[in-house]
Amino acid sequence: MFYHMKELQYHAKPERPDPVYAKKLQEILGGQFGEISVAMQYLFQGWNTRGDGKYRDLLMDTGTEELAHIEMLATMIARLLDGAPDADLEEAAKNPVVAAILGGTNPQHQIVSGLGAMPSDSVGNRWTADYIIASGNLLADFRANLNAESQGRLQAVRLYELTDDPGVKDMLSWLIARDRMHQNQWYAAIKELEAKENIVVPSTFPPELEKQEVSYTFFNTSAGNESAAGRWAHGPSMDGCGTFTYAENSPAFGERPKLPPAPPYIHDTLPAVMRHSDDLPDPHL
Amino acid sequence: MFYHMKELQYHAKPERPDPVYAKKLQEILGGQFGEISVAMQYLFQGWNTRGDGKYRDLLMDTGTEELAHIEMLATMIARLLDGAPDADLEEAAKNPVVAAILGGTNPQHQIVSGLGAMPSDSVGNRWTADYIIASGNLLADFRANLNAESQGRLQAVRLYELTDDPGVKDMLSWLIARDRMHQNQWYAAIKELEAKENIVVPSTFPPELEKQEVSYTFFNTSAGNESAAGRWAHGPSMDGCGTFTYAENSPAFGERPKLPPAPPYIHDTLPAVMRHSDDLPDPHL
Amino acid sequence: MFYHMKELQYHAKPERPDPVYAKKLQEILGGQFGEISVAMQYLFQGWNTRGDGKYRDLLMDTGTEELAHIEMLATMIARLLDGAPDADLEEAAKNPVVAAILGGTNPQHQIVSGLGAMPSDSVGNRWTADYIIASGNLLADFRANLNAESQGRLQAVRLYELTDDPGVKDMLSWLIARDRMHQNQWYAAIKELEAKENIVVPSTFPPELEKQEVSYTFFNTSAGNESAAGRWAHGPSMDGCGTFTYAENSPAFGERPKLPPAPPYIHDTLPAVMRHSDDLPDPHL
Amino acid sequence: MFYHMKELQYHAKPERPDPVYAKKLQEILGGQFGEISVAMQYLFQGWNTRGDGKYRDLLMDTGTEELAHIEMLATMIARLLDGAPDADLEEAAKNPVVAAILGGTNPQHQIVSGLGAMPSDSVGNRWTADYIIASGNLLADFRANLNAESQGRLQAVRLYELTDDPGVKDMLSWLIARDRMHQNQWYAAIKELEAKENIVVPSTFPPELEKQEVSYTFFNTSAGNESAAGRWAHGPSMDGCGTFTYAENSPAFGERPKLPPAPPYIHDTLPAVMRHSDDLPDPHL
Amino acid sequence: MFYHMKELQYHAKPERPDPVYAKKLQEILGGQFGEISVAMQYLFQGWNTRGDGKYRDLLMDTGTEELAHIEMLATMIARLLDGAPDADLEEAAKNPVVAAILGGTNPQHQIVSGLGAMPSDSVGNRWTADYIIASGNLLADFRANLNAESQGRLQAVRLYELTDDPGVKDMLSWLIARDRMHQNQWYAAIKELEAKENIVVPSTFPPELEKQEVSYTFFNTSAGNESAAGRWAHGPSMDGCGTFTYAENSPAFGERPKLPPAPPYIHDTLPAVMRHSDDLPDPHL
Amino acid sequence: MFYHMKELQYHAKPERPDPVYAKKLQEILGGQFGEISVAMQYLFQGWNTRGDGKYRDLLMDTGTEELAHIEMLATMIARLLDGAPDADLEEAAKNPVVAAILGGTNPQHQIVSGLGAMPSDSVGNRWTADYIIASGNLLADFRANLNAESQGRLQAVRLYELTDDPGVKDMLSWLIARDRMHQNQWYAAIKELEAKENIVVPSTFPPELEKQEVSYTFFNTSAGNESAAGRWAHGPSMDGCGTFTYAENSPAFGERPKLPPAPPYIHDTLPAVMRHSDDLPDPHL
Repeated sequence: MFYHMKELQYHAKPERPDPVYAKKLQEILGGQFGEISVAMQYLFQGWNTRGDGKYRDLLMDTGTEELAHIEMLATMIARLLDGAPDADLEEAAKNPVVAAILGGTNPQHQIVSGLGAMPSDSVGNRWTADYIIASGNLLADFRANLNAESQGRLQAVRLYELTDDPGVKDMLSWLIARDRMHQNQWYAAIKELEAKENIVVPSTFPPELEKQEVSYTFFNTSAGNESAAGRWAHGPSMDGCGTFTYAENSPAFGERPKLPPAPPYIHDTLPAVMRHSDDLPDPHL
Repeated sequence: MFYHMKELQYHAKPERPDPVYAKKLQEILGGQFGEISVAMQYLFQGWNTRGDGKYRDLLMDTGTEELAHIEMLATMIARLLDGAPDADLEEAAKNPVVAAILGGTNPQHQIVSGLGAMPSDSVGNRWTADYIIASGNLLADFRANLNAESQGRLQAVRLYELTDDPGVKDMLSWLIARDRMHQNQWYAAIKELEAKENIVVPSTFPPELEKQEVSYTFFNTSAGNESAAGRWAHGPSMDGCGTFTYAENSPAFGERPKLPPAPPYIHDTLPAVMRHSDDLPDPHL
Repeated sequence: MFYHMKELQYHAKPERPDPVYAKKLQEILGGQFGEISVAMQYLFQGWNTRGDGKYRDLLMDTGTEELAHIEMLATMIARLLDGAPDADLEEAAKNPVVAAILGGTNPQHQIVSGLGAMPSDSVGNRWTADYIIASGNLLADFRANLNAESQGRLQAVRLYELTDDPGVKDMLSWLIARDRMHQNQWYAAIKELEAKENIVVPSTFPPELEKQEVSYTFFNTSAGNESAAGRWAHGPSMDGCGTFTYAENSPAFGERPKLPPAPPYIHDTLPAVMRHSDDLPDPHL
Repeated sequence: MFYHMKELQYHAKPERPDPVYAKKLQEILGGQFGEISVAMQYLFQGWNTRGDGKYRDLLMDTGTEELAHIEMLATMIARLLDGAPDADLEEAAKNPVVAAILGGTNPQHQIVSGLGAMPSDSVGNRWTADYIIASGNLLADFRANLNAESQGRLQAVRLYELTDDPGVKDMLSWLIARDRMHQNQWYAAIKELEAKENIVVPSTFPPELEKQEVSYTFFNTSAGNESAAGRWAHGPSMDGCGTFTYAENSPAFGERPKLPPAPPYIHDTLPAVMRHSDDLPDPHL
Repeated sequence: MFYHMKELQYHAKPERPDPVYAKKLQEILGGQFGEISVAMQYLFQGWNTRGDGKYRDLLMDTGTEELAHIEMLATMIARLLDGAPDADLEEAAKNPVVAAILGGTNPQHQIVSGLGAMPSDSVGNRWTADYIIASGNLLADFRANLNAESQGRLQAVRLYELTDDPGVKDMLSWLIARDRMHQNQWYAAIKELEAKENIVVPSTFPPELEKQEVSYTFFNTSAGNESAAGRWAHGPSMDGCGTFTYAENSPAFGERPKLPPAPPYIHDTLPAVMRHSDDLPDPHL
Repeated sequence: MFYHMKELQYHAKPERPDPVYAKKLQEILGGQFGEISVAMQYLFQGWNTRGDGKYRDLLMDTGTEELAHIEMLATMIARLLDGAPDADLEEAAKNPVVAAILGGTNPQHQIVSGLGAMPSDSVGNRWTADYIIASGNLLADFRANLNAESQGRLQAVRLYELTDDPGVKDMLSWLIARDRMHQNQWYAAIKELEAKENIVVPSTFPPELEKQEVSYTFFNTSAGNESAAGRWAHGPSMDGCGTFTYAENSPAFGERPKLPPAPPYIHDTLPAVMRHSDDLPDPHL
């Protein structure tokens, strides 16, 4: 279970309102790689971990910290919206800067949330659990987490570049640092598991059951072979169990598929109609 | 642009129909880590790559191969549905095995697609681009790809365990092998980029702009400290630029937030009402 | 910020595995009125509360408790999935009870989450922030909360009826009791605000600006007038500011709309074509 | 079944085009608490009502009226879009006011709907039935309805503040008045049912089956106890069946969960790997 | 505005309950081509029609009828759910036929809607306005409508095959007949518009502005040329303005794209890293 | 399986960057009728075609071409974003034209995709497979395709009107021409199938099983009878099997529905409460 401290993990105070930026900042609150995503992803992974040792604790600790980041961003967004102009509308229509600013805001910040943060991204898509993953396989999931922190830090850095407000930059510098830590920590956990298992997930499937003749082949499926220059095309495979080869021309190993007609109760196009059509193309139709 | 060969990349022929399994197999066609996801993810990353060298080619080659995997799965699913019983309904109601089978099928395979594959997962959620990512930063994106192939292979292996059909197993053994290759290849590409940049994404943000005092701190946000046993809690950081520390008690660095009242045009609860309520709780109400 | 205690708020241990029930129980974890919804709804309302008194604390306390309920349900679902049969598939195909059970399970519990809880409802729809609301107006939002606890308790009670497992019933009896408390508490908070404002949300819009002649009129828009028998059709209005009237026949107060043609750059059906069509219906076409 | 009158229930004529406002007005047409939501919610509740008395009629009458409100808003939006500038693009690029206006419009109003209303909210999210509820329990559902009318009127009032077009204000004053009536009517219906049942939904679950020792306890799950000042923390409970108590420290009643390993066919991280990791953290890794 | 008649447009009474079929029947209530889709599609097209003649009336009349079809299906589904077994659960677990039936039902019909119809399809996806279209161009939209009635009738026919309940078949025979009428009527309206405009939508774009050299070319983008046998490959084009040609080999008319590096504030992979990688593939990495 | 050519099917080079237009152009890449939709729709129809003749080839050829159109649009959008201003933010805030432009851009083009195309529409909704259809019945599906090409060309034409960049117009002129071809080709294929089957889908359902007395009746469900002027109201039906009639007043053929109470385990409003309420409306409540 959880307890709440009323203090923020770190400051979340802009120097001045900026409703246009509030809209953008929603991305790392309620977007695909926003704080809701990482909080929910780590907590679900933690709750589903079968074992109660350090990995479960790692997940729960980090998921719990991410809840604090949602809180910081929600607070920051509410404050950025504080001074949204109680627009003298006729004036606004005449003042291009005001009009421009209004054009760049999210109308739901006024109409729906009443100048509060929303569980949405920077264009207004509501957060969805489509964004998260918890598979029960920790190596797979830690890779999902390393990806989430990589994408998340990239977005935070881009947002840092899009503002001049020292207060906003201060808060982002906290999140950017924490994302560095979190990339480091998932990286460390991944190394541990790779060392004990193998780099290929899952490590428990008997190799002789897979089609081993194509386990290390790069298929060139395009004209040109720039892709032959990569490490993935030559040399020992990264998992230490094979050798990369480069298939210049990528052949078909299967046959041309032909599906039988559907049974009558499906009411597809009749087989007779389809056959007839193939037999008798009529250019005079 | 693309060309199509009518042959399949590999065989996709079950030994017998199995509409219950067809429903399950949809997961790796149209689910979060199904073949539509990887095809679209790699192609979008490829199209957005700013440069036309080996990385773009790597992405386009692999994305193009994944299109062939969509095709194989679609064909397999249609064939698994081939013999869906043209149910003598009164018989079915009496025959528990038939009834049970019908209970485990996806009704849309009959009503909507007419015994064809659908762009959906194993419970019927339609595929959505919420599943994919293309950020422009290749290290971030290759991590997304390594994760996708890890989750995808895990799911393919679980599906392998859920069938006895030699034809299905044969096709899955192909996909499982290709997922091994693809994990290897993204791993190789990641190593290249990590060697040239750093493991932290993005590598281009000046470290002095982030809140460096917490860049390598693990915050223990729970009672108990199992998480202290991990590599992430002690020793040099994985990025080679710091030292992990473990904060046994995770303090608040910020203050308690207090938001000012909203302007009147927002029509929130009146400040007077909120203040009054705090002053005068009345148990006799 | 938040802290996590490793203990559950209440027990979450079934007497025996039941993967079919695990699927159903997902409804109050990740469905429209599941625990994710109430946790996120109360926390967002709390973070957006402009004032830091008892209402904000009420929201944060309750939202934090709901996080513990997500945790209990996630744990219960993982345990209900524990014994999901490592199916001897040929046997299962012959054993109708086993086949039936398999038909009633959620395939993603095996393929995607690896026998873990998912952020989804009982048919597999992923949780979405479409489910929640935080408007900044507390009376409006407390009504949303009273509704959520009413729907949520109703669903928990229905689920209680659908199991015999004493461990599951024990946990549900906890959630059902808490939902009673939460209905009571939002009710109490609503009464406070209604007493200080008015029952109509928002209370701050000047009544003379609304079309007062229809502020208390019930429009009968159907043949028959059963609806005239209700309290809403006669007597003083509930807000104490008017008198209900019942309009037996509901007239149109507006005119028939006629929209002008779109400008040419929109490429709609040409006005000439539309006019011509009306003039010259031709039955011989 | 339904009949249509060509006249609008009330006027829907703006004084002048305003494509920026048309975008905003979409919120109460196709947003979470827009007219599509209430129409569909009341009609589904009506159709599912088991009984054909006054409550069913109340629901059908009101749902039918809401269809007329969809119509009014669709008409108003089409008219607000009437004069969307057939932009002389080079001029627009130079004229900041025009450019600003264009920036604040919804591009789909031109590209997709051809200057017509869309079933979407003010940021373009399509309407979804995720927004509505019909549970079969009328007290629960009337609370959903009271909430919908509270949120809906709040949004209409905020939109009223964001325009100075007399025609738009005139139509909104109608909707705001009708929302007053509808809040009153659901309030009246709720009072009736609460008087006959109890305020707790559902009223039919035997109290002795719930964990009664926590049915009236407020758990303080945060540092600080502002929440103790509320009516919900002391005195007789609102349902008349208990007494509120305030638990200053919210204890855990459950134990620390420990999940057993998954069976091998799930291919999770191996139990041995997880155990080993806990035993042998290696800071030199 | 609308009025409601309490009678159904046609009977909706099954001979016996069948919760498994109730789940399936949801497809044509709340699925992609269900009655909600056609009702909302026709009404939105009607409201947006710029002109008030026969086309607007046609749309409004048909949309209004479809509302009655939603009502019939909702009633039928509620009745099919009437006798959902108040399961003696221990018995059910032992009785394979009962267990199988339970496996094939939609759990939300019990937990969420309380034995009522839902605005969802046969696998539980909630209805979404993603399904509908209203473009302002009537020829385009009538084609959308003809498609909707074609898909809808196909689904109704398939559902007819999946039941032997005379009451259900009776109702479906009504809907199937109405879908015949509606296909006929959109077909008639399409013929009128095609006769006055042209078959190509929109008819108002100057042909000389399109790349006319490929306006009638079929590009064979696959090995093999079965597609050459079609009417679309030879002879006068259907719009009467050109001649079909078949391009046996489909060439690229464009060049290989090369995107310049992104500016630094985007923090993509550095151009130097990308170039370096291409120059120096290192198999010993 | 597929192969990729590095060249574009046609040029995709704007004369100058235009991030505002890039946002709009997303509509025909990732919107409801964008290129992703048609590519996926045709390919799924092709893979599900039961027969391997000219129709399957037609579908695969066209689907494969649409993949090339996704590629062209992705390239064009990336180039339109090339010069997105590395804004000197203080300057931008003062320069209304720059501010206005920024207001009209999609913030995710900077934050999420790093100046790349996204699988989204012009307001940021992610692409969803809700948009596509593959039913197995070719006549139904070719109508879906004709509609898709009609809506798609209409949107491309509207976008052509919204730019004066010669490079963008050049690419659009290609797509507009191809959409002409594709409308022609689906039209041709439809004619073939209609000639061999009938215009009513599906053609295989025995007419005597449908409620033939309403198979050709137009129900006037509104006051006024403008709809009587249409071809659909009089004369021989389009399918050649009946005669249209116009029902001036649209009667109810069914009865008023009355649903029995739900069983107790559903916990609906009690029948007694509902009955009582109808008997005893009390205006003094």
